[in-house]
Amino acid sequence: MDPPPRFVIEACEAAAMAKDAGLALTDLLPTLVGAAKPLARTPISRYHVGAVGLGPSGRIFLGVNLEFPGLPLHHSVHAEQFLATNLALHRERRLLAFAVSSTPCGHCRQFFQEIRDAPDIQIRVFPVDDPDQAPDPAFGPLSRLLPRRFGPDDLLDKEVPLLLEPHHNGLTFLTRSPNPDRGSSCNGFCDGPEADELAAAALEAANESHAPYSKCPSGVAIVDREGKVYKGSYAESAAYNPSLGPVQAALVAYVAGGGGGYDGIVGAVLVEKEGAVVRQENTARLLMGLVSPKCDFRVVHCRSG
Amino acid sequence: MDPPPRFVIEACEAAAMAKDAGLALTDLLPTLVGAAKPLARTPISRYHVGAVGLGPSGRIFLGVNLEFPGLPLHHSVHAEQFLATNLALHRERRLLAFAVSSTPCGHCRQFFQEIRDAPDIQIRVFPVDDPDQAPDPAFGPLSRLLPRRFGPDDLLDKEVPLLLEPHHNGLTFLTRSPNPDRGSSCNGFCDGPEADELAAAALEAANESHAPYSKCPSGVAIVDREGKVYKGSYAESAAYNPSLGPVQAALVAYVAGGGGGYDGIVGAVLVEKEGAVVRQENTARLLMGLVSPKCDFRVVHCRSG
Repeated sequence: MDPPPRFVIEACEAAAMAKDAGLALTDLLPTLVGAAKPLARTPISRYHVGAVGLGPSGRIFLGVNLEFPGLPLHHSVHAEQFLATNLALHRERRLLAFAVSSTPCGHCRQFFQEIRDAPDIQIRVFPVDDPDQAPDPAFGPLSRLLPRRFGPDDLLDKEVPLLLEPHHNGLTFLTRSPNPDRGSSCNGFCDGPEADELAAAALEAANESHAPYSKCPSGVAIVDREGKVYKGSYAESAAYNPSLGPVQAALVAYVAGGGGGYDGIVGAVLVEKEGAVVRQENTARLLMGLVSPKCDFRVVHCRSG
Repeated sequence: MDPPPRFVIEACEAAAMAKDAGLALTDLLPTLVGAAKPLARTPISRYHVGAVGLGPSGRIFLGVNLEFPGLPLHHSVHAEQFLATNLALHRERRLLAFAVSSTPCGHCRQFFQEIRDAPDIQIRVFPVDDPDQAPDPAFGPLSRLLPRRFGPDDLLDKEVPLLLEPHHNGLTFLTRSPNPDRGSSCNGFCDGPEADELAAAALEAANESHAPYSKCPSGVAIVDREGKVYKGSYAESAAYNPSLGPVQAALVAYVAGGGGGYDGIVGAVLVEKEGAVVRQENTARLLMGLVSPKCDFRVVHCRSG
């Protein structure tokens, strides 16, 4: 069996690859787009997109697009969103440069505005297997593709952390008073240590969620048949619609972490505030039910600490 | 009682207003942004956006943003999407120019690419009641805000109709064989002539739906307490996520048509293909259930003619 595809290349290996190729690290990125592209999961469009980005740690991250049949298209994850989520998963605080196989759409140009110094991110469109499109001759700043941006600067104070920066949302489980003797810090999702662990992972994800606009952070943890846990944090956009849901983020973690078919996911917990004005529950249940119908889906509520 | 706000200004009236103000028709648009903005329905952000556009007929159209609490933010309708939907409702085939109170986000710049000659649409950002933002001194082309677009040209043949152009999707109701003597062209949604009428309106909307990428057109018709029917057609984006759902489109029709609170909506029918790969049903039910909990929601399936 082939080893699962890798979505992160460690700094030392990336440096060695660049040296072998006689390239600067940034110029290595376009050479990896062709390997990323086939990892996309696009049952609707069959239109594969691969994105390869470089962080300040020297690590290289891959992103691909994901689509989910049976639902509206706003559930899709673009390769650039996958890339940003992959960076967040690995606590990479910025994106310096990326190469991508298709010109980013406006939705992605907007989503990237949540990253610090987004206008300066260097981008190079580098089509592979597409004779109709010529690659960019060089990298150029993202600001060239989204001039006069609408972004975090328009809505947030300068000190508010942006997407890839550390978040400590201070959420704790909501203890329900009706049943105090259960010691229920997990709102009834107390079927055993594994369930507790999954809820705790989802709470961690919610605590790292970027939701400065609605102040409704949320997180999802999923577990596969082998007991491996993957976490995803809701990532909000200043422009609202391009926001990435917590299930999408967890599915990115699953794919990037070597997960196979989504039906390998057997359990999922969503943590969000009760009565949140931006409420993920019903939508998360819908998406999880579609990608893995037998998955046990639970919601645990939390509150600000 | 005040008359309901108007979202369309007829050509003769617009011409007279421009003449009175000593302005070209296009230069009248920024002067109307301040009147549009308060019509936004933004219970989440309280961030009102108004957009005012001019079509080749000489008519002026308004757009505002809509938000829906209790759901993820991708359900939101931006002012520019409202404007485009308003143009479609009134069979205006192009958008020549628009003024808008905030810099359009990348999502909206992308959504507008579905309109013929989008790069040439003239735009002027014209903030009102916002001392921090200076208005644009003049109109400029949309291409300046979304250079090197990803759009319909990348995926469609030239002769495929774009968003505002006439669509005839050739959908008909799916006749179910088990109960032929009911003459059921409406899949069991035959509780009377009104229900038939609503399903027929939803089928019309589905037939006008712009869904060239997934080939899963859909439409929604809603009816209010007074029996007034509003139709909305699903509008797809080449970039997938910015697509506007059929319920959103119908709610735009409701707001633009003078509808008050959404709880005035008592019935809704969604028409889409059975087993569509882009399936609106569950999401449409969720949104309708939230905005008007007592609304009777039905789904009627159709097929390509």
